Amino acid sequence: MSKTDPLSCESRTPFKSISGGVTAPSGFRAAAIDCGIKNPDVRRLDLTLIVSDHPTHTEAVFTTNQVKAACVRVSAQHMREPDIRAIIANSGNANACTGPRGIQDAKAMTKAAAEALGIRMRQVLVCSTGIIGMSMPIERILPQVAPLAGKLHAKGSDEAAQAIMTSDTRPKTFAIEVPCGGGSFRVGGIAKGAGMICPNMATMLCFITTDARVAKDEIKRAVRHAVDLSFNRITVDGDTSTNDTVIVMSNGQADTPLIRSGSEESRIFRCALHKVMLELAKMIVADGERVTKFVEIRVRNARTQDDARRVAEAVGKSLLVKCSFHGSDPNWGRIIHAVGYSGARLREELIDIYFGGLIACKGGLSTSTPISQLEKVVKEPRFTVTIDLNLGSAEHIVYTSDLSEEYVDFNASEYSAAIHAKRQRGLA
Amino acid sequence: MSKTDPLSCESRTPFKSISGGVTAPSGFRAAAIDCGIKNPDVRRLDLTLIVSDHPTHTEAVFTTNQVKAACVRVSAQHMREPDIRAIIANSGNANACTGPRGIQDAKAMTKAAAEALGIRMRQVLVCSTGIIGMSMPIERILPQVAPLAGKLHAKGSDEAAQAIMTSDTRPKTFAIEVPCGGGSFRVGGIAKGAGMICPNMATMLCFITTDARVAKDEIKRAVRHAVDLSFNRITVDGDTSTNDTVIVMSNGQADTPLIRSGSEESRIFRCALHKVMLELAKMIVADGERVTKFVEIRVRNARTQDDARRVAEAVGKSLLVKCSFHGSDPNWGRIIHAVGYSGARLREELIDIYFGGLIACKGGLSTSTPISQLEKVVKEPRFTVTIDLNLGSAEHIVYTSDLSEEYVDFNASEYSAAIHAKRQRGLA
Repeated sequence: MSKTDPLSCESRTPFKSISGGVTAPSGFRAAAIDCGIKNPDVRRLDLTLIVSDHPTHTEAVFTTNQVKAACVRVSAQHMREPDIRAIIANSGNANACTGPRGIQDAKAMTKAAAEALGIRMRQVLVCSTGIIGMSMPIERILPQVAPLAGKLHAKGSDEAAQAIMTSDTRPKTFAIEVPCGGGSFRVGGIAKGAGMICPNMATMLCFITTDARVAKDEIKRAVRHAVDLSFNRITVDGDTSTNDTVIVMSNGQADTPLIRSGSEESRIFRCALHKVMLELAKMIVADGERVTKFVEIRVRNARTQDDARRVAEAVGKSLLVKCSFHGSDPNWGRIIHAVGYSGARLREELIDIYFGGLIACKGGLSTSTPISQLEKVVKEPRFTVTIDLNLGSAEHIVYTSDLSEEYVDFNASEYSAAIHAKRQRGLA
Repeated sequence: MSKTDPLSCESRTPFKSISGGVTAPSGFRAAAIDCGIKNPDVRRLDLTLIVSDHPTHTEAVFTTNQVKAACVRVSAQHMREPDIRAIIANSGNANACTGPRGIQDAKAMTKAAAEALGIRMRQVLVCSTGIIGMSMPIERILPQVAPLAGKLHAKGSDEAAQAIMTSDTRPKTFAIEVPCGGGSFRVGGIAKGAGMICPNMATMLCFITTDARVAKDEIKRAVRHAVDLSFNRITVDGDTSTNDTVIVMSNGQADTPLIRSGSEESRIFRCALHKVMLELAKMIVADGERVTKFVEIRVRNARTQDDARRVAEAVGKSLLVKCSFHGSDPNWGRIIHAVGYSGARLREELIDIYFGGLIACKGGLSTSTPISQLEKVVKEPRFTVTIDLNLGSAEHIVYTSDLSEEYVDFNASEYSAAIHAKRQRGLA
């Protein structure tokens, strides 16, 4: 079983899927409320609070974009605090490119949450998602924080998942229960994505909770490892938005032994965390804006890991490849074209390309596989493209989607529409 | 005037636009013929020959894609020959991913041309553009080469420009006459592009002729310089197709002094070559598949040239930015987002963004410029986006386009359609 096979750990460890998202693990509560952030006339859940009732070890991974939203800057500062207790998150406004006023607003959100919860402001992380470059309607948000805290409950995850949606068509939630050391722990998460995931990611937010008892250094390593095998497989280095954030809170309330790096329990924990992140990452791709296809790009037998990654990303983000997926066109010529400019070492005459299990290109040349059979594969809503470089043994997987006409239409006038809507309401 | 300003040389040297394309300079002839390469039932010009009646210094720049078409491999070999006399080029089939058979076919085309012209096979370059991964219908091409050579004439450029078109909607041709050293020389060119130019270029072909008397080392340097300031501004390093080729033939028939590196005449020649390439490059962007907007991305005051290039390319190839151009949406938030992940050194609080002459973002923040005024700029079919990093003095320009719904539709099923069409004709 290969290192990059997302199922390699699960097959050895029986995970039970459960409901409850971020409130599935013990000792977490959540709630959401409607502040009219995007538009006061359209009421929908747009502010959420996720809280641990016990001390946590928390790890966060923030966007690598150099233009960082105010909330990212404030949360990164607050991560110096050893005991994070809460996340406050909103949709409808990204609080990005908002200058000193944006920092003030992000801090005000953490302060309001801290006051309502009776904790310190630095124990609160803040996340925002929505349009870039417009000030937060903070006057509509702050008065709702205390009522929101009053609503916190142990089954609040579904509301939270809804409140972080932007152009997502459905909430994304996943949780599992995992036997470990004679007891069991739970890992649960919610996420939002939409936008084009690759190469230009709209904000991706993912909040994960676990009641596993995990040593502080181990949670850090486990999160990096899981992000690398999940969210970093649906995007491209450096192509992250101003707001992308993954947060994992662990509160140690489960009846399992303390999980330390290198132990068998650590292996189980990493698998579990990876599983939850991967499922959420796949949901993000499958619910990308106007997406009709979910495609797994598998590269094998590359000279190096880096070469495998380059090829998978070049193919996964090629506009022309994505257009051909949309048209159910088994166009291996466009795939090999992207392989050729990926920068990976390759020998054209060794490259094989498969749609599902069918070989479309062998040694860089067309095969006799009937086009009707290849078409049958790519007409499916989910399929795999395998690119075998036949040069080494490194592998990489990227999850991608098609590109549809509707995607373009959908993304053609966001900013104008937002400004005009604001002006109609007398705000701009 | 900045080094990167495409007009800086022209403003000092009066160029006269003339007709005639590659046959405008003395001593060149061209012709085209129809072989039914793509489809024997649809007759259109699809094979062309461009010939110099005198010895040439010829320079060529080929794709950096590691998957190279057979014609590129053969032409690169033939470039070792000091005196190239002819280019044979076809549309309808790229002769890429066609293995040893493809090499044979490309060689057969040069051989047929050489025989018809009474020159050596290695004096002929060969170019192909069209679908990848299907064998050339060489049996339909070879019998037409001698008749094609028989049709060569001194006004054949327009036919040649038509014969290399694929999904281009119009032929691309440009020529100038340039006073130099008491006499004058001419530079003329034709090109084809279409496909998405950036980030996934369909085949770009450009053939340029000149009767200037240019020293061999100078033609080499002048071509690299001009390509860097033109075709490399509409694509992205490494993102070139399997077939991209620029060829410049100079036959020294003009009544000007010999042009050597470092001379005033060399400055004039480089300007002229740059001018012809830039005009053709811009025509390629403006005629990109289903393009409705031509946008110049100007980056200024970057720390380094490399930083300026990174920013211009990240913005110019961002899907979300291109969608917003299509919708005439002055969405500077998406632009700064792409600036942020470009990898260039920057300080968010120093970034200014302009649409035309209007500032939309100052110091990373929204300005008070009314949205209606910004919209007026981006509603135009041609406009400029300027990104000022306010960090140094380096500049870069990239030419890009919008991304339209029609582009996706158009690119959704090329391969299937070609295979099915071939099968209908009983060929597959």
